[in-house]
Amino acid sequence: MAPAAPRSGEAIFASVERVNAELFTLTYGAIVRQLLTDLEEVEAVNKQLDQMGYNIGIRLIDEFLAKSNVSRCVDFKETAEVIAKVGFKMFLGVTASVTNWDAEGTCCSIVLEDNPLVDFVELPDTCQGLYYCNILSGVVRGALEMVSMKTEVTWIRDMLRGDDAYELQVKLLKQVPEEYPYKDDE
Amino acid sequence: MAPAAPRSGEAIFASVERVNAELFTLTYGAIVRQLLTDLEEVEAVNKQLDQMGYNIGIRLIDEFLAKSNVSRCVDFKETAEVIAKVGFKMFLGVTASVTNWDAEGTCCSIVLEDNPLVDFVELPDTCQGLYYCNILSGVVRGALEMVSMKTEVTWIRDMLRGDDAYELQVKLLKQVPEEYPYKDDE
Repeated sequence: MAPAAPRSGEAIFASVERVNAELFTLTYGAIVRQLLTDLEEVEAVNKQLDQMGYNIGIRLIDEFLAKSNVSRCVDFKETAEVIAKVGFKMFLGVTASVTNWDAEGTCCSIVLEDNPLVDFVELPDTCQGLYYCNILSGVVRGALEMVSMKTEVTWIRDMLRGDDAYELQVKLLKQVPEEYPYKDDE
Repeated sequence: MAPAAPRSGEAIFASVERVNAELFTLTYGAIVRQLLTDLEEVEAVNKQLDQMGYNIGIRLIDEFLAKSNVSRCVDFKETAEVIAKVGFKMFLGVTASVTNWDAEGTCCSIVLEDNPLVDFVELPDTCQGLYYCNILSGVVRGALEMVSMKTEVTWIRDMLRGDDAYELQVKLLKQVPEEYPYKDDE
């Protein structure tokens, strides 16, 4: 049977179950606030948000593969495009673009045009080292690990820190070749 | 100017910004897991989830009033109907119904037909006292307090505890009369 054609992020987003973005934003804000209270150190909060995102990413990839009909990406370059164009649209309803490729094609930036996580958010002076959206970097890292790409994901620009956009650098560290006990066409 | 007609929960939900429900579900799950790790006692987690919900509710009411065009409810009975029919639809995309009114019209139940918070959730034996969805009771309590109704909101039925539905009892404790320095038609 021929595989179904991949669907656009827009079409998938329109078809999946959704909740109000403001509820999501406020709920996420409640997590960050809770972590700041419990862990005290901003560095520890960054780490915990990333870890939470990682745990979400390793589960979200299943929904992504099931709903998107994306076939296996040929390389990291295609993978990055799919994350930006389909993934961000499908889950957050926002569009992202891929830029700043290095010569080897193993490092790029995903730039977010819009970011529902930060609506109404202003960081107090005591939180200047906080990467408020660090859950997103964890999600990307976790999801990629489940398709055999070990990556390092870091914020290069962050509007809450005064930058003009949200820019997530994704660096491919290692690609584990997938080994199947069966062939693709079996 | 005549006030705009109230809008149905469905229509509002269709028009507001939304995010993928599975992302929301997993994010909420991450909060609960985090609280269980940090606070250890299930009772403390229940309380904290309720408090987080309360903080969200006192902010979400603004979005609700702004988007729903609901005019002031004449009594608690009408308020409960609006929460169930418009509020739950507008934020979670689910329908709820109001039942089990007491004779005085100060206590009722909101029954959820669907609950996106609990998709994929199974509670381990160590969490049997947990009210996993306690953030919702807090949201309702917080939102109502901002429109001058002090309430007590408790779970009567919980499918994660083996019941056949999610039933939230809302009990009006005190209604603070609103006093305005101006009249409505000024």
